[in-house]
Amino acid sequence: MDSFDLRLPALRAAYREGRTTPRKLIGALRERAAALNPDYHLFIHLLSDAEIEPYLAALDASAIDALPLYGVPFALKDNIDLAGVPTTAACPAFAYTPGESATLVAQLIALGAVPIGKTNLDQFATGLNGTRSPYGKCRNSVHPAYPSGGSSAGSSLAVALGVASFALGTDTAGSGRVPAALNNLVGTKGTKGLLSTAGVVPACRTLDCVTYFTATASEASELLALTAHYDPTDAYSRVNPQWNDAAAFGEIRRFRFGAPRQLEFAGCDESPALFAQARAALEAIGGEAVEIDFTPFVEAARLLYEGPWVAERYSVAGALMESQPDAVLPVIRDVLAKAPGATAVDAFRAQYRLQALKQRCDATLAELDCVLTPSIPRAVTLAELERDPIGANSLLGHYTNFMNLLDYAAVATPAGFMCNGLPWGVTLFGRAFTDQYLLSVADALHRKLAVPLIGGAPQDTDMPARAAHHDRMKLVVCGAHLEGLALNGQLTARGAQLVEATASAPRYRLYALAGGSTQRPGMTRNTANGASIAVEVWELPSAEFGSFLAGIPAPLALGKVELADGRWETGFVCEACGLDAATDITQYGGWRAWLRRLRPVTGCG
Amino acid sequence: MDSFDLRLPALRAAYREGRTTPRKLIGALRERAAALNPDYHLFIHLLSDAEIEPYLAALDASAIDALPLYGVPFALKDNIDLAGVPTTAACPAFAYTPGESATLVAQLIALGAVPIGKTNLDQFATGLNGTRSPYGKCRNSVHPAYPSGGSSAGSSLAVALGVASFALGTDTAGSGRVPAALNNLVGTKGTKGLLSTAGVVPACRTLDCVTYFTATASEASELLALTAHYDPTDAYSRVNPQWNDAAAFGEIRRFRFGAPRQLEFAGCDESPALFAQARAALEAIGGEAVEIDFTPFVEAARLLYEGPWVAERYSVAGALMESQPDAVLPVIRDVLAKAPGATAVDAFRAQYRLQALKQRCDATLAELDCVLTPSIPRAVTLAELERDPIGANSLLGHYTNFMNLLDYAAVATPAGFMCNGLPWGVTLFGRAFTDQYLLSVADALHRKLAVPLIGGAPQDTDMPARAAHHDRMKLVVCGAHLEGLALNGQLTARGAQLVEATASAPRYRLYALAGGSTQRPGMTRNTANGASIAVEVWELPSAEFGSFLAGIPAPLALGKVELADGRWETGFVCEACGLDAATDITQYGGWRAWLRRLRPVTGCG
Repeated sequence: MDSFDLRLPALRAAYREGRTTPRKLIGALRERAAALNPDYHLFIHLLSDAEIEPYLAALDASAIDALPLYGVPFALKDNIDLAGVPTTAACPAFAYTPGESATLVAQLIALGAVPIGKTNLDQFATGLNGTRSPYGKCRNSVHPAYPSGGSSAGSSLAVALGVASFALGTDTAGSGRVPAALNNLVGTKGTKGLLSTAGVVPACRTLDCVTYFTATASEASELLALTAHYDPTDAYSRVNPQWNDAAAFGEIRRFRFGAPRQLEFAGCDESPALFAQARAALEAIGGEAVEIDFTPFVEAARLLYEGPWVAERYSVAGALMESQPDAVLPVIRDVLAKAPGATAVDAFRAQYRLQALKQRCDATLAELDCVLTPSIPRAVTLAELERDPIGANSLLGHYTNFMNLLDYAAVATPAGFMCNGLPWGVTLFGRAFTDQYLLSVADALHRKLAVPLIGGAPQDTDMPARAAHHDRMKLVVCGAHLEGLALNGQLTARGAQLVEATASAPRYRLYALAGGSTQRPGMTRNTANGASIAVEVWELPSAEFGSFLAGIPAPLALGKVELADGRWETGFVCEACGLDAATDITQYGGWRAWLRRLRPVTGCG
Repeated sequence: MDSFDLRLPALRAAYREGRTTPRKLIGALRERAAALNPDYHLFIHLLSDAEIEPYLAALDASAIDALPLYGVPFALKDNIDLAGVPTTAACPAFAYTPGESATLVAQLIALGAVPIGKTNLDQFATGLNGTRSPYGKCRNSVHPAYPSGGSSAGSSLAVALGVASFALGTDTAGSGRVPAALNNLVGTKGTKGLLSTAGVVPACRTLDCVTYFTATASEASELLALTAHYDPTDAYSRVNPQWNDAAAFGEIRRFRFGAPRQLEFAGCDESPALFAQARAALEAIGGEAVEIDFTPFVEAARLLYEGPWVAERYSVAGALMESQPDAVLPVIRDVLAKAPGATAVDAFRAQYRLQALKQRCDATLAELDCVLTPSIPRAVTLAELERDPIGANSLLGHYTNFMNLLDYAAVATPAGFMCNGLPWGVTLFGRAFTDQYLLSVADALHRKLAVPLIGGAPQDTDMPARAAHHDRMKLVVCGAHLEGLALNGQLTARGAQLVEATASAPRYRLYALAGGSTQRPGMTRNTANGASIAVEVWELPSAEFGSFLAGIPAPLALGKVELADGRWETGFVCEACGLDAATDITQYGGWRAWLRRLRPVTGCG
């Protein structure tokens, strides 16, 4: 077959320009997948002609531009339901054939995407390496001595080996991030509940996420924007309260990211330099690094397998394991062995412990826009896994196991290669619902590092100027909300922080408004006869803007204010109707200067 | 002593006018409390002269108006720490003497309030009736054949019998609401985490709340506004993301409240009429009643004692119960008996079940501003409790046990009296963080019903015109956001609902703005030469306003718009600077009419 770039924009262009059709392309990809499978064991089940035909036929009846994912081939982990095809969770004795596809899979198909196969995984998604499967061990896409990483092993390989544009994984402990790191992919573990888990075999149902593997962060951003919908059939589904979609953009320069004071590389002599390089690249695009205490994160991580959450896994696989011990791999039996002994008291006490750790971790994140870590301390070889199946696996989860317990969003991003050619990656994580922001920073980092993409395709190094909004927003104030003035408490009570004292563009006039219980100014734009007005930029949670806005009386309003450096930010403006009895105080250059003028002159000292 | 009205405003006035002093008043109250205690057993420990002196001395050094709660006497349940005084949780063998007060108690003292004693409770706050204590059974404040209700038994009596302005209770299953209903009090069980639980003996730590007992809802509103702060020493503390403080007011008329289709009165022949009267009163103040399916709420309620949450209680009292069985009351031992057998798998499965029920209950609440229920199905007598200590107690929890499991806020409000004089009450509940809204509706309901207050004081029947904001806000749109127009999706994607199509006050002009990717109008206020413009009022979660605002370009802004009926609501306004190249289209009366004019005329059909 012709080698097509499978990235979403390239594929869309190829279809539009008539260079291929879904039927042709997907036929070729299935042949390639079948050829790769004996070596890589990436698919448990490749769709047959008959199984795939309905999806292709639906496309025949559609215009290319009518479907946002027209003809986009994707693979899905075999713990996610596809109607009419068995779901095995890599355990043949567990297999069942669902009548309906998982909600997310149905969404993707409705958008035009075409499922090509069910991918191999660590059994019951319990593992981070990709070798715990009766369907064969998944070797790394680049280096034969290493595993693919898991548990979403085959899904990562499907994208890395060029047989699918994207793939669905799941991620409870790191299963959507570890294989991304090892195969030069972006692995997006969105906020819990943002993507539906209905129709997914649970690992830990309170923690599970479905993930996207893509070549680039911008593709993951597009997929997330298309599919992050509340699902009434998933009890753990959540609405994004900030709606920080990719279309709403803010400043990318000037952000603060955490970097662990305690870095764990497990003796790897190349990783420290690779991490330092990623950190420097993040600084080069405007990030300010802040060293953070990583111990509470690591303590939280330990709870996942050492604490009662193993009981969640047992509640899925336990009955089978008790009735047919040989149906479950020995290593999985070992992991689940202590679950039956855990009491409800243990479960609640572990939750208290987690909550205390989360409070500390949240306090750290409150000061930051995101955190940068390696995705794994170091890669482990297939030989190491053979020798120490649990220890070597656990090592891979050092930077990932805490994420869902703490309710954070994370994006694993390619960040270079080891000397032996093995991909190496970092993870950006942040507060729940900052997914699109993290993806935009990951995209900028990926470009800045100029890491070649899967298959050796060159990275697009044009830098995006703007990042998606996260859960904080800037607010320009010019009057009674200035630091220390009468209404400033309305900001500080909402957790607002002063970002900078600056000035507006020289295109505003300032008026002292008449009436009102608190003396307030109104700032109005006047491009013909304006001046620069002293203002402050504050930042507060975007969720707080509603209640803040509710208390703002006419003629004041929140609109957009142009700052001296040309940025436009949300801030106070004033309706013209309010200026009838107002006093033009533009000549004072700001509200504080006007207030000082008003104050009676007192002696020195 | 003179009989002082202990309500906050009355007490403040009495101090200001010099009619009494904290020292005099509190001395008299302590005497009254000591006289009542042999009959009512409301206090486990009344503060001694030496214990109370430091609090009084601090007030001597302060101006009355310097402290918002200057000299306000309060009682606290004996599972809440007061420095230097034993905390017993009504179990002498469990007692300890804390060196520091609970965070909330310290907050109240710093605001000028004076603790007068530690109140009696159902042991380990496990009970809803007030008779499960080795310190004596708490009888009802009005009728000797009935219990006070519990577990915050003595706290309710301290307020109802006029020895404290307010009292602190705790509420896991209903302990802050059931005794309120039985003693003609407002019982405020705020959103979990809004009031600090640091320094409180846990019942179920994931569910516990501290509560206020007051004579009126407006006092509870004031106390909540003063003390609802994030506490870094309480791992379960939460910030109110809506900051819907009592100072931000919205419309009280036109709200939708749920009322259970399935009402449980356990054979009481008076309660149905009392409930119908409360429902009618809520309709009379502008509420629209919506019958709701109450089964998922009742199913969730059952999980509290029938499910693994009992293990949380066991994790507190279990060790003592195992080592000294006689130290724990037999009825408490019976309640906790099944906890040791519950497994971690049970605990997680119950959480899945709860989550599924919560999803159903949340969907019901999404359409409503609040829900009205009886506070208890019916009162039970002391004799009934004697005969059936667990069954009679369980009955009391029918309308309360689900509240914390489902993460709702609730206010128990007096709603009349039985023929035998026993107080009867209703509960208003709603989504987390709608506390102040619920209190303002409760206040209006309480006044409308004109229920005499504790001690027979007449109710103030002046109706408040406005209610505190809840977690939704109205938005007036006049252009591309109108239903079905280009940008309406920005509203619907945020869960917005159309409330009404109406018009602005006749004081606006409408302009078609020049430029921009979407054609948009600007509406500006013009009192001298304005017209009435067609607008729509939408309602959306206040948390969504930030991201919505982020996408609004200059010269548009969100300010306040006057509607035809004189209301002012948040809505789109326009800066004057944007009108230079705009077309005045006021004569069309609205954006839709202007758009129709622009559309090419086509034939019929």
